[in-house]
Amino acid sequence: MAFDLITLGETMLRLSPPHFQRLEQTNTLEVNVGGAELNVAVAAQRLGLRTAYVTRLTRNPLGFMIANKAREHGVDTSHVVWTDGDRVGLYFVEFGASPRASSVLYDRQNSAIANIRPGEVEWPKLFSGSRAFHTTGITPALSPTAAQATREAVEKAKAHGLVVSLDLNYRAKLWTPAQARAVMGELVAQADILITTEEDAERVFGVKEPSFEKVAETLSRTFPNLKVVLITIRETPTVWRNTWTALAYTQGQILRGPLFDIEIVDRVGAGDAFAGGFLYGYLTQGVEAGLRYGVALSTLKQTNPGDLVWATKEECDRLLAGAGLRIVR
Amino acid sequence: MAFDLITLGETMLRLSPPHFQRLEQTNTLEVNVGGAELNVAVAAQRLGLRTAYVTRLTRNPLGFMIANKAREHGVDTSHVVWTDGDRVGLYFVEFGASPRASSVLYDRQNSAIANIRPGEVEWPKLFSGSRAFHTTGITPALSPTAAQATREAVEKAKAHGLVVSLDLNYRAKLWTPAQARAVMGELVAQADILITTEEDAERVFGVKEPSFEKVAETLSRTFPNLKVVLITIRETPTVWRNTWTALAYTQGQILRGPLFDIEIVDRVGAGDAFAGGFLYGYLTQGVEAGLRYGVALSTLKQTNPGDLVWATKEECDRLLAGAGLRIVR
Amino acid sequence: MAFDLITLGETMLRLSPPHFQRLEQTNTLEVNVGGAELNVAVAAQRLGLRTAYVTRLTRNPLGFMIANKAREHGVDTSHVVWTDGDRVGLYFVEFGASPRASSVLYDRQNSAIANIRPGEVEWPKLFSGSRAFHTTGITPALSPTAAQATREAVEKAKAHGLVVSLDLNYRAKLWTPAQARAVMGELVAQADILITTEEDAERVFGVKEPSFEKVAETLSRTFPNLKVVLITIRETPTVWRNTWTALAYTQGQILRGPLFDIEIVDRVGAGDAFAGGFLYGYLTQGVEAGLRYGVALSTLKQTNPGDLVWATKEECDRLLAGAGLRIVR
Amino acid sequence: MAFDLITLGETMLRLSPPHFQRLEQTNTLEVNVGGAELNVAVAAQRLGLRTAYVTRLTRNPLGFMIANKAREHGVDTSHVVWTDGDRVGLYFVEFGASPRASSVLYDRQNSAIANIRPGEVEWPKLFSGSRAFHTTGITPALSPTAAQATREAVEKAKAHGLVVSLDLNYRAKLWTPAQARAVMGELVAQADILITTEEDAERVFGVKEPSFEKVAETLSRTFPNLKVVLITIRETPTVWRNTWTALAYTQGQILRGPLFDIEIVDRVGAGDAFAGGFLYGYLTQGVEAGLRYGVALSTLKQTNPGDLVWATKEECDRLLAGAGLRIVR
Amino acid sequence: MAFDLITLGETMLRLSPPHFQRLEQTNTLEVNVGGAELNVAVAAQRLGLRTAYVTRLTRNPLGFMIANKAREHGVDTSHVVWTDGDRVGLYFVEFGASPRASSVLYDRQNSAIANIRPGEVEWPKLFSGSRAFHTTGITPALSPTAAQATREAVEKAKAHGLVVSLDLNYRAKLWTPAQARAVMGELVAQADILITTEEDAERVFGVKEPSFEKVAETLSRTFPNLKVVLITIRETPTVWRNTWTALAYTQGQILRGPLFDIEIVDRVGAGDAFAGGFLYGYLTQGVEAGLRYGVALSTLKQTNPGDLVWATKEECDRLLAGAGLRIVR
Amino acid sequence: MAFDLITLGETMLRLSPPHFQRLEQTNTLEVNVGGAELNVAVAAQRLGLRTAYVTRLTRNPLGFMIANKAREHGVDTSHVVWTDGDRVGLYFVEFGASPRASSVLYDRQNSAIANIRPGEVEWPKLFSGSRAFHTTGITPALSPTAAQATREAVEKAKAHGLVVSLDLNYRAKLWTPAQARAVMGELVAQADILITTEEDAERVFGVKEPSFEKVAETLSRTFPNLKVVLITIRETPTVWRNTWTALAYTQGQILRGPLFDIEIVDRVGAGDAFAGGFLYGYLTQGVEAGLRYGVALSTLKQTNPGDLVWATKEECDRLLAGAGLRIVR
Repeated sequence: MAFDLITLGETMLRLSPPHFQRLEQTNTLEVNVGGAELNVAVAAQRLGLRTAYVTRLTRNPLGFMIANKAREHGVDTSHVVWTDGDRVGLYFVEFGASPRASSVLYDRQNSAIANIRPGEVEWPKLFSGSRAFHTTGITPALSPTAAQATREAVEKAKAHGLVVSLDLNYRAKLWTPAQARAVMGELVAQADILITTEEDAERVFGVKEPSFEKVAETLSRTFPNLKVVLITIRETPTVWRNTWTALAYTQGQILRGPLFDIEIVDRVGAGDAFAGGFLYGYLTQGVEAGLRYGVALSTLKQTNPGDLVWATKEECDRLLAGAGLRIVR
Repeated sequence: MAFDLITLGETMLRLSPPHFQRLEQTNTLEVNVGGAELNVAVAAQRLGLRTAYVTRLTRNPLGFMIANKAREHGVDTSHVVWTDGDRVGLYFVEFGASPRASSVLYDRQNSAIANIRPGEVEWPKLFSGSRAFHTTGITPALSPTAAQATREAVEKAKAHGLVVSLDLNYRAKLWTPAQARAVMGELVAQADILITTEEDAERVFGVKEPSFEKVAETLSRTFPNLKVVLITIRETPTVWRNTWTALAYTQGQILRGPLFDIEIVDRVGAGDAFAGGFLYGYLTQGVEAGLRYGVALSTLKQTNPGDLVWATKEECDRLLAGAGLRIVR
Repeated sequence: MAFDLITLGETMLRLSPPHFQRLEQTNTLEVNVGGAELNVAVAAQRLGLRTAYVTRLTRNPLGFMIANKAREHGVDTSHVVWTDGDRVGLYFVEFGASPRASSVLYDRQNSAIANIRPGEVEWPKLFSGSRAFHTTGITPALSPTAAQATREAVEKAKAHGLVVSLDLNYRAKLWTPAQARAVMGELVAQADILITTEEDAERVFGVKEPSFEKVAETLSRTFPNLKVVLITIRETPTVWRNTWTALAYTQGQILRGPLFDIEIVDRVGAGDAFAGGFLYGYLTQGVEAGLRYGVALSTLKQTNPGDLVWATKEECDRLLAGAGLRIVR
Repeated sequence: MAFDLITLGETMLRLSPPHFQRLEQTNTLEVNVGGAELNVAVAAQRLGLRTAYVTRLTRNPLGFMIANKAREHGVDTSHVVWTDGDRVGLYFVEFGASPRASSVLYDRQNSAIANIRPGEVEWPKLFSGSRAFHTTGITPALSPTAAQATREAVEKAKAHGLVVSLDLNYRAKLWTPAQARAVMGELVAQADILITTEEDAERVFGVKEPSFEKVAETLSRTFPNLKVVLITIRETPTVWRNTWTALAYTQGQILRGPLFDIEIVDRVGAGDAFAGGFLYGYLTQGVEAGLRYGVALSTLKQTNPGDLVWATKEECDRLLAGAGLRIVR
Repeated sequence: MAFDLITLGETMLRLSPPHFQRLEQTNTLEVNVGGAELNVAVAAQRLGLRTAYVTRLTRNPLGFMIANKAREHGVDTSHVVWTDGDRVGLYFVEFGASPRASSVLYDRQNSAIANIRPGEVEWPKLFSGSRAFHTTGITPALSPTAAQATREAVEKAKAHGLVVSLDLNYRAKLWTPAQARAVMGELVAQADILITTEEDAERVFGVKEPSFEKVAETLSRTFPNLKVVLITIRETPTVWRNTWTALAYTQGQILRGPLFDIEIVDRVGAGDAFAGGFLYGYLTQGVEAGLRYGVALSTLKQTNPGDLVWATKEECDRLLAGAGLRIVR
Repeated sequence: MAFDLITLGETMLRLSPPHFQRLEQTNTLEVNVGGAELNVAVAAQRLGLRTAYVTRLTRNPLGFMIANKAREHGVDTSHVVWTDGDRVGLYFVEFGASPRASSVLYDRQNSAIANIRPGEVEWPKLFSGSRAFHTTGITPALSPTAAQATREAVEKAKAHGLVVSLDLNYRAKLWTPAQARAVMGELVAQADILITTEEDAERVFGVKEPSFEKVAETLSRTFPNLKVVLITIRETPTVWRNTWTALAYTQGQILRGPLFDIEIVDRVGAGDAFAGGFLYGYLTQGVEAGLRYGVALSTLKQTNPGDLVWATKEECDRLLAGAGLRIVR
């Protein structure tokens, strides 16, 4: 079975106290699952791509739950690597209100995916006939063996002719900028698409420019193999209200996505929904469509709780066509 | 027993996912009941009118629940028509966040009220000694027999000397503009009060004017029998924050209601609370008071969940007198 | 893609008030999905069969939710027939306490599957290489066209050499015993496996015998094509505590399953979990294993909320091996 | 407007922690309303009597809530006495599990009804044309003025020819047995119907007999004016499982109600549902029917949460006819 | 055992409907505890002071809950006065949305603390070696004996050389401005620190000035014993969005705290968190630090539900250092 | 500050799905904290002992929550060892229904307490003047360094003349029987009190006897230093209904505690509540009182959710005096 998009990475159980409670005060936790690469696969699937997700999971109810949620969204999980050991990583989200930002507490050490090793995934079988591969800077940051396994995946993807997409996604709790630069530099040098933010571009690659456009351009020059560099752009006048857009640098020119004023329900996973939406548009129509679907889908993502996006292609189309804010009956 | 206000129409079970969840993702639904004409009766009762509500309901727990909720608010249900057949209509509400508007999914086909027929309600008994009758454009849109039953009610109300109030309430999922124009035109031609919005005036009667005031004036000229034409006016800078007001055209002049900046908890039922508040003020003091109570009550409605309004006359009076936003101890 | 088991039938949104509330008093509904044939597919998948589920669904969030839940359990939904019309059926469950039995209120008329017609499903594609087909007496009871579509499926399944399994599942609200006898008699006459209860055997086929064993035997003689006749047996000393077992008549002899004393959390779907468990055991090892897995899986089903079973094969094995009631650490 | 049954007494806000939590550990309280006499009115209304409820309430949201809940069940509240002072009484319920019994913590001092005085209710208007009056030993125990107001009500009820029904309902936290004997002795001497338990008969009137039958007989001899004496009988093998029945002594003979084995969801209000069911049967058909409806309705009451009963007459009839414990579809 | 801060006052059970429901419509209440002086002790403890809280409580689960919550935050309760009589006060909070302000309904009459009398608390033991004492204008307003007990506490605190801090906290439902002026005037004349708002300064002491600064200065001149006068300043453009700051007048000069734009989750207890934060900063570093910690801590308080603050000193430091609104990973 | 009882061990965040849901199916987790030794300290404190709890915790909101909950119950936490590293252990509880037992899934590896080392706790300061020390077989099983730290604590407790109490508490997921025997044998040889079950006595020390009494006697002979050996005894006819008692062997004789028939709400922590209740009775009155309070308190524990017991000494006394199952008003 061939796929339009295959992603690799960690999904954690996500636990969050309701209604702006602090973690320390809560007696209930809402349960979701989330992780950058699953979020991307779900997003792309919502719009119509056939997607598969690869990870390593402990064979217990928490691991099953993660695979179930992927399947619920139609994402193939037949290449997940199962183990009886290790654990399922967790993370806790506290939702904020100005001037208290939302925050995340990770408890992901020694998770099953951190112990993945090259050779555990049947990449040739999975990549054969498939179109694109996506991962992020989180996966190689999990452990040295995870970094090796990520490198193996990227190399095999290239070898099978897949489009390789990377989201830089720097996580300071997992590794240093220097470590990230070494590993990600090597991976980006093999990629076709790079998605990042101004901050991460500076932290990982030291790219400091006066404009978002220049950041994209510089990255593109640094890694001439890249066909598209995408920068997502968020302004945060308050915690509950943000603006959101993205731009692309491709073939020497800048393309700008639409900008939306968002009432934030849950911004976690926005960048991932952008990546999934972009890849849908890119693979079906090109960079410009990718930018539009990426921004639209990730905008809608931020209006529902959970890491995963539940919007439809029709909703993206209506939003892009200028749907109003009146109740839809 | 005589009533100040009698309303006729459908009430549905209203099911909504909590906390901005999409319907597709939820595992819990909050249960309310709602329907334009019950909402109006409840609103008027909150301010002090004696009200009765007429509908047709299936004799099962869902039907009982609807009658119970009317009674909970002191609305008389002794003229509800009960049947062992048909079903209770449902609707699902998804609450939005900018730029995703709230939306409603109806599942109301073959409901008991859609199968109402002329002759099933003892209108003479109910109208005798009563003061006003209100229905909306939704009731005749439910089915041809419902349209006939609505026409019967309006004609009998006129015959018994009741004030007849109509809310145009166009629902595109129920009928076409042409159908609405034919049926509603005939009903409005018998009414004393017409409540609508700029959009509905255009969609149903083709009234397109440069200002809200002109819309009201034109409707008033088209239907010279109307003593009052009311236009409710909403601005939606964001989904969570709207402004809300209304104006009236009566006896050749425009009256303007107060305007409120609202943090939206639940805007469903606002127009109905306006109608109920207006009818209270109109029947007890006149058009100007009606406009003030209508806007105040419907403003407060939008700050609590559910179709029904829970505010009191004292709260309306305080709001109209300029109550501040500090905590009331 | 070939499957071990393919099922056909209706899945509804299942709405239930929490904590023994009466429907009339509730303000919250728990949302699940359920329907006999999906329940069977999920049960079989939990134990390891590759399953597909066929139904007809409205293309709206409720329809999507049903397909999602099937996929969450790994059940293939690629042959679901989608429509923009009709509706998704609903049912409400009230959980009882002695001496008040639990009860179900259906609101399923005019659902999408009731309007299914022969020719809408690509049966040859689906059946090619597959092993078994299962449906119940509910599907043909939904409408005359649904009966035709069911007959088509059974005939094509036979033609493709699949094991055909039927659960009699008589629903008095959908058709009369005479209607059921006519339609089901024709289907059972083509089946390999019949699952039913003493009550349904009497209501549909007029089989009244002094023992469960005799009921099975008589059914087997009436329909000599049947390879296995299964009778599920429930005793209800109280609403919260039941005993549960099943027996099989096959090749002229009676096989008895284990009997369990169950503290009932939710008995809806027990018969379906039995069918799914039986088909797993039957297809992998034979009638006796089928009986054991059927009873074990359906017993565990009754200890968790929802129509669907969440137990694992390991849990069935432990239960059959005599696991105790002490906490498992 | 005339009523079949009028009751007088206190209704409190009832707050209970969910799922067997201790009050000290909870962070959520479920809100119901409850009080013996409202419970009786609701029970009788469920079966078909026209009922009115009289109390004294503070004009605040908690007082409104109590009146609303009465109205929700169709109970007339137009004779409720409203005040701007005092407070709404509260009580907290902790649900038990063997060997910990359920328990109630009252916070009802200085409630509005405790300050009721004779002359505040328009009894002649309310009693004119009505059929029965019911109150309990709780109302006069609330305060000396409440005792006077209760006496006034009983006397006026007798004067207007109403059937007077009393439930002894001794509350040790409100008064001493001696106080209860003095006040209740005077009231029972004017009553037609007395409902009580063996324990209360002993605590208030010192009636100690070897059998329930003898208790009823002795009470009947002590108060020869009584037409019926009813004893409700509960056995509590465990907290979650009780048996429940009642007997009547009338015209020199004993009548026995049916006995039910109950899985207890919430036993608070059972005695009141018995009284309401009895009065329905008594007023429409006689003592025997009263006993049957009383036991059936109060049995069903114990299977749903809250003080109030939500069962229907049809459900009582089915239960009395021997409905089984299988799921009702 | 010696404490940095000891507070005296009432804590109530706080009951609030979820999600902007009106009290009249709710069926669930969230349970917290709150009261000005406990709130202050908790706030100070969060930042590092050793605190003790004194009150009078009824020995029942509600009283235990209040003491438990104090202990949960590390506040010493060994000097709480316990009684078997009286009751635990309650208050209900309705959360508002513009233009409906949040509101509080008190049910606190006859609470245990209202019946406190001088001599019940072992002040000398508690004050010996301790550093500061804080109470508010609510405590003496509860009853004449509570006023005497408050006066006793202040006098003994002065005698033991403690810093005495008062929050004026005028409650119109408890006493008149004249009564407040008489009692509080006497107490403020013995205090070192006075915390109040422009409104309360005017209502209680008739101080009306053109600026906040002038109000502080005038209070300082009126009560020359005061070392610091603090004014908290809130602007309420909408219910969900406020600005918040404070200023201090000390040693003839004005100090200004930082100003924050707050998305309001729950503003109840903000003033108390300010007092607690101020006292921490004042006792450890001086007035300026007090102002900064007071504003920071009370700002963070408003972003979580409940009267009590759950922020940490580190979070205050980050906020004061200019933390952004981006998610913290 | 001196304590009656000091305990040492791990407390975890306890997460459990509501209403018998399987972990795999849930979307909400109830949050409690629990761990054998904290449970014991809380239990003893509920009855009146002054207790302190020692553990090692990560300085984050989860660690704070654990310390807070200890403090909420009045348990001193001033000797908790805090670290910025490691993590807070978690465990998940699934509540069962016959024949599915409840089960626990641990995720406790690399928790802060597992990395405790000798010398980190100021035992001399804590033990000076204190009366008893308690830990369980879980603490030394966490890691080799935790075993060393436990040994250090026991030795120092003995040296300071404290009563040393041990609960054998064998956890097969943490170590082998042989490992447990080696470590626990050494510790039990220094203890005064040993609490265990028949199963653990066999698994750890190979004690297999025909009666509970003989098990206690044999253990007592094996470890002649033991002053008391306690065996808790549970029968599990069903998951929701157990019997529970305990016996003691002391000074050559058997003492038997009362036996209770329990409707199980949550049995986790029962053994710990027994230990806490026993230590209270033992330290204040002797072995017989210990046995009675131990059984009574642990019985009540099983009727409320959570690891911790919320019952009072008065409730234990009432239960031991034969309180009935009728509602307590």
